[in-house]
Amino acid sequence: VKVSELGEFGLIDRLAEMADSLRDNRFPSWRNLIIGIGDDAAAWRCEGGTQLATVDSLVQGVHFPSAVDSWADLGWKSLAVNLSDIAAMGGLPRYALVALSLPGDTEADSVIEMYRGMLELAQPFGVAVVGGNISAAPQITITITVLGDSPAEDGLLTRDAARPGDRIAVTGSLGGAAAGLRLLETNPPLDPLSAGALRRAFWRPNPRVAEGRLLVGAGIKAAIDISDGLAADLGHICEASRVGARIDTSLVPLAAVALAAFGAAALEMAVTGGEDYELLFTGGDAAIRAVHQKAACPVTIIGDITSARGVLLQDGNGRTIEYQKRGWQHFAAA
Amino acid sequence: VKVSELGEFGLIDRLAEMADSLRDNRFPSWRNLIIGIGDDAAAWRCEGGTQLATVDSLVQGVHFPSAVDSWADLGWKSLAVNLSDIAAMGGLPRYALVALSLPGDTEADSVIEMYRGMLELAQPFGVAVVGGNISAAPQITITITVLGDSPAEDGLLTRDAARPGDRIAVTGSLGGAAAGLRLLETNPPLDPLSAGALRRAFWRPNPRVAEGRLLVGAGIKAAIDISDGLAADLGHICEASRVGARIDTSLVPLAAVALAAFGAAALEMAVTGGEDYELLFTGGDAAIRAVHQKAACPVTIIGDITSARGVLLQDGNGRTIEYQKRGWQHFAAA
Repeated sequence: VKVSELGEFGLIDRLAEMADSLRDNRFPSWRNLIIGIGDDAAAWRCEGGTQLATVDSLVQGVHFPSAVDSWADLGWKSLAVNLSDIAAMGGLPRYALVALSLPGDTEADSVIEMYRGMLELAQPFGVAVVGGNISAAPQITITITVLGDSPAEDGLLTRDAARPGDRIAVTGSLGGAAAGLRLLETNPPLDPLSAGALRRAFWRPNPRVAEGRLLVGAGIKAAIDISDGLAADLGHICEASRVGARIDTSLVPLAAVALAAFGAAALEMAVTGGEDYELLFTGGDAAIRAVHQKAACPVTIIGDITSARGVLLQDGNGRTIEYQKRGWQHFAAA
Repeated sequence: VKVSELGEFGLIDRLAEMADSLRDNRFPSWRNLIIGIGDDAAAWRCEGGTQLATVDSLVQGVHFPSAVDSWADLGWKSLAVNLSDIAAMGGLPRYALVALSLPGDTEADSVIEMYRGMLELAQPFGVAVVGGNISAAPQITITITVLGDSPAEDGLLTRDAARPGDRIAVTGSLGGAAAGLRLLETNPPLDPLSAGALRRAFWRPNPRVAEGRLLVGAGIKAAIDISDGLAADLGHICEASRVGARIDTSLVPLAAVALAAFGAAALEMAVTGGEDYELLFTGGDAAIRAVHQKAACPVTIIGDITSARGVLLQDGNGRTIEYQKRGWQHFAAA
């Protein structure tokens, strides 16, 4: 069976099973492990707290167009997706290692510009780029590992902690990144201001690190960052938690730039598009209200966790909505 | 200027300078940092000890032939190069994150077989594979990050600690991996036993983790693992330590399999070939003798650190030897 037939998540399940089958508590690594493969980041106990680690790759021609418009944007995004994973665990990002592979005829200035964009994001978060690797390859791949931590007394935000009766909430607004990607692919006539805002929505997501810490402080237990798409990532939470979900799509906070540029199509972008890197989380009304009051960004309740399995999308009148594609999956027969 | 003109190490220098220029001790990440870009692994202080992190990529068609002979071997090697980096710092490897990118038409069983080879190596070292990422791409790239640690009371083995008067020593024997690569590329007539041994030398290096710990215990301060080649990696030590080196090539311990298969050519393979993943280290006679007495593998003195810069290769009669290529460098005009 080909990888494309098994699918990204099918393959990950098989590999995770193999890795976990070697668990051996005579070794400190296994003894201290809290979360292995399958969440936004791995987590293990250390003296004084919890260590977090995550890795993500951006591949030219797969995650971003072959003709790179802004190398600084590419650098920003390649780090942002990892900081977002640490945020989705409720941790603080600390260190980054950058593995680059690229063709020898790449301009050195382009790589330096990419680094500049990456460091522009790293600096205010206090993330130190402390290592990496450079290798020749036929196309550009940027793989970044981010290490973070969390104080011992704090809980982690995991995918498997959603419970029936929880409300489902989301930070910020959705659909901007998908609209930005549509712009890059189709280049519709737009005023420069809107075009710039859309491009930024795709290329320069803001990892919700402060918001992740707020969630932990408010007692929220279940969260994920929206990388594959609202419906798909909610599906990941439901599977890990063995619950279901019902979303009222009329409550989904749409990115203003997506709405202005693409009108009614913005809703599908918001629900299935992904790459907005907002936090999707579940919990009681009071906890969500506490987050809402303290967060600098909007926090919106969009549905409920149910005991019936599956993710149900309904419009404001309770009618079921079906989209052809629920989110991003590598190797999925598009 | 193209990346191929600047070269791998020129580019790394530029990027490291950028990353370090953001050092800001108001952040705990920077305050705790001991070693950033430029050694075998990054290191930072944590409660109870030192954390270590390293990342390496293997790219199809660059680091290994496009037609993969044994996926298990590929998995072994992709983890081994990282465990070796932790060993070269004197640390213990604990956790691994695996980022795979590969074409959708790859057989899932091949990926599983690769993982099997990786876990075969991970298991006896107590290394837990705790995360990763899978992505579509035109060719296979395996990027592994390994996290390790070292007790607070122990020192680290760094590249910048060699001092004039130090003896230069190496674990195990050299040239086996280069001979194995030559076998893969040219397929000379060899008996199956020798061919198998050479293939293993290239594909299944044994990370010298126990030996790295022995070096620390004996008070050795300077070490690197031999990935680019003896001459090239000794050059890295000399540059970082601002010293020079003189090697008596007649003392270099040659891999028996390389000598048997390629005769006199084995010496050049041992000096410039790389990928043997032995430890190259410097220190006083007494410390090296202590390592020699405790190590399960051969430990051989092959030269001296000098105050005159550069790496001088001499034969047993003191005559200078020059090789066309001193070791591996990405983007080097071959």
